[in-house]
Amino acid sequence: MTAYAELARRHQRMYRLGHLQSIAYWDQSANMPAKGNEARALALAEMGGLLHELATAPDLSGLIEQAGNEPLGDFEKASLREMKRSWRASNALPQQLVEQMSLAASRSEHAWRTQRPANDWAGHLPNFKEVVKLAREAAEYLGHATGLSRYDALMDQYEPGMRTAEVERVFAELKTWLPGLIREVQARQASDVVIRPQGPFSKTAQRELGYAAMQLMGFDFEAGRLDESAHPFCGGVPEDVRMTTRYSDDDPIPALMGVIHETGHGRYEQNLPRDWLGLPVANARSMGLHESQSLSFEMQLGSHPAFARLLSPLVIKHLGDQPAFAPDNLHKLLTRVQPGYIRVEADEVTYPAHIILRFEIERALIEGEIECEDVPALWNEKMQQLLGLSTDGDYNRGCMQDVHWPSGLFGYFPCYTLGAMYAAQWFAAMRREMPDLDARIARGELQPVFDWLRDKVWSQGSRWDTPELVRRASGETLNPGHFQAHLRARYLG
Amino acid sequence: MTAYAELARRHQRMYRLGHLQSIAYWDQSANMPAKGNEARALALAEMGGLLHELATAPDLSGLIEQAGNEPLGDFEKASLREMKRSWRASNALPQQLVEQMSLAASRSEHAWRTQRPANDWAGHLPNFKEVVKLAREAAEYLGHATGLSRYDALMDQYEPGMRTAEVERVFAELKTWLPGLIREVQARQASDVVIRPQGPFSKTAQRELGYAAMQLMGFDFEAGRLDESAHPFCGGVPEDVRMTTRYSDDDPIPALMGVIHETGHGRYEQNLPRDWLGLPVANARSMGLHESQSLSFEMQLGSHPAFARLLSPLVIKHLGDQPAFAPDNLHKLLTRVQPGYIRVEADEVTYPAHIILRFEIERALIEGEIECEDVPALWNEKMQQLLGLSTDGDYNRGCMQDVHWPSGLFGYFPCYTLGAMYAAQWFAAMRREMPDLDARIARGELQPVFDWLRDKVWSQGSRWDTPELVRRASGETLNPGHFQAHLRARYLG
Repeated sequence: MTAYAELARRHQRMYRLGHLQSIAYWDQSANMPAKGNEARALALAEMGGLLHELATAPDLSGLIEQAGNEPLGDFEKASLREMKRSWRASNALPQQLVEQMSLAASRSEHAWRTQRPANDWAGHLPNFKEVVKLAREAAEYLGHATGLSRYDALMDQYEPGMRTAEVERVFAELKTWLPGLIREVQARQASDVVIRPQGPFSKTAQRELGYAAMQLMGFDFEAGRLDESAHPFCGGVPEDVRMTTRYSDDDPIPALMGVIHETGHGRYEQNLPRDWLGLPVANARSMGLHESQSLSFEMQLGSHPAFARLLSPLVIKHLGDQPAFAPDNLHKLLTRVQPGYIRVEADEVTYPAHIILRFEIERALIEGEIECEDVPALWNEKMQQLLGLSTDGDYNRGCMQDVHWPSGLFGYFPCYTLGAMYAAQWFAAMRREMPDLDARIARGELQPVFDWLRDKVWSQGSRWDTPELVRRASGETLNPGHFQAHLRARYLG
Repeated sequence: MTAYAELARRHQRMYRLGHLQSIAYWDQSANMPAKGNEARALALAEMGGLLHELATAPDLSGLIEQAGNEPLGDFEKASLREMKRSWRASNALPQQLVEQMSLAASRSEHAWRTQRPANDWAGHLPNFKEVVKLAREAAEYLGHATGLSRYDALMDQYEPGMRTAEVERVFAELKTWLPGLIREVQARQASDVVIRPQGPFSKTAQRELGYAAMQLMGFDFEAGRLDESAHPFCGGVPEDVRMTTRYSDDDPIPALMGVIHETGHGRYEQNLPRDWLGLPVANARSMGLHESQSLSFEMQLGSHPAFARLLSPLVIKHLGDQPAFAPDNLHKLLTRVQPGYIRVEADEVTYPAHIILRFEIERALIEGEIECEDVPALWNEKMQQLLGLSTDGDYNRGCMQDVHWPSGLFGYFPCYTLGAMYAAQWFAAMRREMPDLDARIARGELQPVFDWLRDKVWSQGSRWDTPELVRRASGETLNPGHFQAHLRARYLG
C-alpha cells in the first residue's frame, strides 16, 4: 500500500467515526431530553479525544512526507495538501485540551438553552469564562503552530488564509457606506405600507411550509431532514443532512427564511463530490463559502423581486390566504430594513453591523484585551453606535443571543459577512454568463442558479484554495464592490 | 492505579463510545432517510470494530488476572466477574467477523423495511443467507470458546446459563397444556360481545395517548423519548432511553399496549444502578429479565382486571368517547385470545406458540440442520400445527415479520417466553408479600409494583447471576408453574 493510500484509509476511518459524532451533536440539539446531557457530553468528549488521537497518530507526519515523494496526479496532490492542512490543525492542540473544550462547550451550550430565555447572564458567566479560557489556550497553541496571532489562528480554521488585517480593511470600508445606506433605505421605505401576518400559525402548518420551500430550493429529502432546535443549524453528514429551524407562533417569516437559508448549506453538503467523500479534499472549502451558499438561497434568491411570486402560493396554501401573503407585500416583508436586536432575524442590509460588533468583541476577548465581564457593556455600546439600540440589562437579546460563544466558537462570525460578499459576487458572475438570469428566475426557473452553484462551488469540495475557487468560479478574487452594488440595486434601485 | 481501576477506566471508555453507537442505531430506525443508510452502515461497522478492538486489547486478560489477586470487596468481585464475562464474549470473535456482521445486518435490516411490506422474500433471501452464514460462523467461534453447541452459544449471550435442553424441557411442558388452554379460553370467550374501536385515529392523538400511558407507568420524560419506527423497540442509553412504537389508523390498541410494553424495558434501563453506570455490572442482567419487565407492564399489569378502569379515561380523553373504550369492553379487548399471524400483536395465551415456532426454526437453522430456503415452508407447517393458520406465500405476516432475523439476531426469541414466566413469578411473589396488592392496583396504586420491581430487579443490575437474582427476588428459582397458574386465573378464573 502506498503512503497516500494508507493516509486515505486513515481519513476514511475518521470520517466514519465522525459520522456518529455529527449525528449525536444534531440529536443533542434536536431530540435529547435534559437528563441525557451529562452522559452525552462525556460520550462526545470521549469521541473528540479519540478522533484527535487518530488525527495525531505519531506515524502520520512520516506518511505525509513519504506520500509527497510518491508520483501523484493533480487530484491526489490537492487531496494530500488538505490532509496536511488537517494534520497541522489537529497537531497544534494537546489531546487533553481538545477533550476539555468539548466537555466545557457541551455543558455550557446545554445550560445556555435555558439560561438565555431566563436572561441569566450571572448563571452563564462561569461557563462562558471557562470556554473563553480554553479558547484562548487553543488559540495560543494554534498561533504557535502557524505563526499567526491568537485570533487569526482561530479564524484560519474557518476561513483559511483570512486575516484580521484583511477583515478590518473590508469592515472599515463597509463602515464608510453602511450607516448611510441603512438611513437611505429606511427613508425610502418609510412611506411603505407593510401588512404583518396575522397569527397564530400552527407549528404543523409552518413545518409543512418549510418542507415546500425546501422542495422549491431542490433539497433532497431522501438524504436529509428538517427538525427543530433552539438555534437553527445545518448538521449531520453529506449523505444525511440534518437541518433545524425554530418556529414562532405569531410570525412565520423568520422560520421560513431560516429554512431557506439552511437549505443553501444543506445542498452544498448534499452535493459535495461523492467519489471523494471521507477525504478532507471532499469537505466544503470554508465557512465563508458555506455562508455564501446559504445567503445565495436566503438573500440573493430569497429577497429577489421575483421570488415572492414563487413563494406566495406556497405560503397561502399552508398558512391560509391573508393580505400579508400577497406577492408584493411578501416581497416588502422580505426586504424590510429595520435595525433590530437579533442577528439571525436581521435583514441583509443591517446584518453586517451585527457581524462587525461581534468581530470586534471576540477579537479583543481572544487577544486578552478585554475580559468576559466586559462583554455586556461593550455589546450595549456598539449596538448603540452601529444600530442605535440599547441592550442594557438585556442579555437574551444581547450578548447571549447566539449559540456560537456558549459553544466555544470564536473566529467564525466574520464568515457570515464574507459569505454575503461572495454570494453577491456569484450572482454578478451568473448575470454576466446568463444575461437573462433575472427573467428566468421570474419565470420560476431556479435550476440555472443551482446548476451554476453545483458546478462552480458544491462539486469542487476543497479541490482549490479559497482564492483559486473564487477566481475559477467568478473570474476574480474577492471583490466587496459586488456586495455594495447588490444592496444599492435591490434596495435603492 | 490498581488493575481493577484500570479495567474500570477501560469499560467507562467503551461505555461512552457505545453511547454514540446506541443513539445512531436508534436514529437509523427512527429518523434516518433512505440515502443515509450506506454511510450509517459503514460508520456503525467502524464503531463496532473499534469497540471490539478495545474489548479485545491484548493486555486485558493480564489485567483481569491481576485484578483477581487484588483485595476486592463483594461488589468489586461481582463487577470483575462481569468484566470477565464481557471479555470472554468479545474475545471469542475475530474483529473482521464482527465488522462483517454489523455491515450485513445493517444492510439487510434496512432493505427488509421495504421488502417486508412488499412481501418480497426473493429480494430478502440473499441478505438473509448472508446474515445466517455469519451468525453460524459467530456461533461456531462462541461455541469453541464456551464449550457449548452453536445455538446454546448464541442464546447464552442473551440469557446467560440457559441451554437448549432446558428450553426444550420447558417448551415441551408448555405444549402439553397450551393448545388445550387456548381452546378452553376460546370456548369461554366465544359468546363475549366485544366492540371494536371505530377509527380512523390520528397519529397525533395516539401519540398523546402513548405519552399519557407512559406517565401512568412512571416513565421519566426528562431521561427519554417516544418516537416511531417500523418495529417498536427500546434503545438509547440508561440516561436517555429511546422508545419507539408504530401506529395503525384503525386500531389504536396494539400501539398503546406496545408503548406500555416498551415502558417496562425503559424503566428497567432508567433505574439501573446509577453509581455503577459504565461498568458491565450496571447492565441489565439478561434479556429474559428485560422481557420480564416489559411483560410485567404489558401483561401482568396491562391485562389486569382492574387496569382497564385506569386506562379507559385516558383513552377516552385522547381518542374520544366510544363504546369500545368503556372499562369492561376495554378489558375484553386487552384479554381477547385469538390465534393470529403476528407475534407482536399476539395475546399472552397464544404468544408462547409464536416463540416455540421461532425457537425450533432458528435452532435448526443455526445448527445447520436446515437452510434459509426451508424457512417459509417450515414456518407455514408449524403455524398450522400450533395455531391452525396458513402462511403459504405470505412472508409479510410469516417469516419476514420480525426484525430479529433480518438483523442477524438469533438465540433471542426464547427470552420472550422466559420473560413471561419470570413476570408471573414476580407477581406471585408480590402477592405473597402484599396480600392486598390487587386491591391496591384496583385503587390505581401502581407504585408498590414499581417499588418492588425497582428494589428486586432494576437496581440490582448484574450484581447477581440470573438464578441468584430470581431467588433473591422471589424466593425460588424459575418455576413455570406460576405462568400456568396466572393464565388459568386470568382467563378461566
